[in-house]
Amino acid sequence: MRTAFYISDGTAITAEVFGHALLTMFPAQFEHITIPFVESCDMAEQVKQRINDRYKTTGQRPLVFQTFVDDQLRQIINSSNAVCYDFLNSFVEPIQRELGIAPMAKTHRTHSMHEKTYDFRIDAVNYALANDDGANMKNFDHADIILVGVSRSGKTPTSLYLALQYGIKAANYPFVEEDMEALKLAPELLRNKSKLFGLTITAQRLSQIRQQRRPDSRYASLRQCQLELNEVESLYRREQIPFLNSTALSIEEISAKIIASTGLKRHKY
Amino acid sequence: MRTAFYISDGTAITAEVFGHALLTMFPAQFEHITIPFVESCDMAEQVKQRINDRYKTTGQRPLVFQTFVDDQLRQIINSSNAVCYDFLNSFVEPIQRELGIAPMAKTHRTHSMHEKTYDFRIDAVNYALANDDGANMKNFDHADIILVGVSRSGKTPTSLYLALQYGIKAANYPFVEEDMEALKLAPELLRNKSKLFGLTITAQRLSQIRQQRRPDSRYASLRQCQLELNEVESLYRREQIPFLNSTALSIEEISAKIIASTGLKRHKY
Repeated sequence: MRTAFYISDGTAITAEVFGHALLTMFPAQFEHITIPFVESCDMAEQVKQRINDRYKTTGQRPLVFQTFVDDQLRQIINSSNAVCYDFLNSFVEPIQRELGIAPMAKTHRTHSMHEKTYDFRIDAVNYALANDDGANMKNFDHADIILVGVSRSGKTPTSLYLALQYGIKAANYPFVEEDMEALKLAPELLRNKSKLFGLTITAQRLSQIRQQRRPDSRYASLRQCQLELNEVESLYRREQIPFLNSTALSIEEISAKIIASTGLKRHKY
Repeated sequence: MRTAFYISDGTAITAEVFGHALLTMFPAQFEHITIPFVESCDMAEQVKQRINDRYKTTGQRPLVFQTFVDDQLRQIINSSNAVCYDFLNSFVEPIQRELGIAPMAKTHRTHSMHEKTYDFRIDAVNYALANDDGANMKNFDHADIILVGVSRSGKTPTSLYLALQYGIKAANYPFVEEDMEALKLAPELLRNKSKLFGLTITAQRLSQIRQQRRPDSRYASLRQCQLELNEVESLYRREQIPFLNSTALSIEEISAKIIASTGLKRHKY
């Protein structure tokens, strides 16, 4: 099996996203090794040794995805027995030419707390936690978005992802069984109606998910799931609440679709 | 101000990471526009029009970061009045040559739920939520890692990030004021000692953070913060619990450092 290294003087998150996007295109297995915070020549030399050892053991040159800005560190890694892919270095020059300005020399830190938007994200995470599952409805006035839907339709992980990734304050509110008889929007939801976004899901998938949580309960039965989904979807239509079906979507996809369709302002790029 | 577009037939998350890593190297402001889920030629033509309009209004060619795999869609975007940067396309060929295998033709979907590891991540998020702030200590036996530290030292956002990003089951446990008199590890922590990881922070920063939460309280006082941190750090040393100081680190950096120093197994790459 070929080894893929992701190496950086920072978190190596960018190197991972970059390498992963490329390697998933190939029908092959890789052993993945991430080495973050390689911040000195000594450390870079150790990493180089590790790469060379891997080459000796496997007989195949490792693939190295790296995102150093420091030239000296990059060159040490480049001198190892590996194939090195360096997208920052490849693209910086064309962008420099286009913009007509030089890049800053300082070490690259995309994922550090020196980003202006860092505090927004922590605030948003705290907000999402404090306003999960319909808690503190009076806080809904401060939400950027309020996700609504039946229990286990994906509201909570989506709220957290919107907060962590984009600094968006997402509250969420579950429509529970007791609401179903005469489903309507509570006053706190009504006065924030423009912020509501509905999630739905197929009854089959919902039943599967609930089954894991409370096996053989009425809550998990296909009949109950279908009933709740019917009620909630007709509420969405009646009240003209935008909604999407989360069944075949990842949290990342749900979040990206919500942002694209609502025009929600992100606090992080 | 120059406009940067991030465009993809998927979430465009990879395009954003890619473009953002590059643009943050330049001392300039950009207007950022993300357009995800461009899945048909019609949609690609509309996006092209939007790019060209932007060129007309601003007089400057927008920068376009794109991650299409579909050749036809890519070419439509490439024919706009923009400078297009396409790292997938630039690197696929060299990797193909090195591996000696062809990439798959299907659309690229790094952030979809078809990743094998998707369910791990949702389980891990649910685990982190259910085991936040010392809840359900009997579940600690199922944790991959247990973050410990004083209140507001960064445990909760880090647990959530480890779960969402890496599928790691992270519980967390706060040492509260009442524990300080004779600080020791509870039985549930003792029997999972190899999973413990401590967070600490400077008293100044902790006091600032607590001040926002409960202004002018004893809880937020510098004196109380210092006292708790002294106790907790000496516990870490006495019990040989690895720990790090989160003061100047982002959640991403804390998480990457924890994984690198513990060798924690990730469920997502």
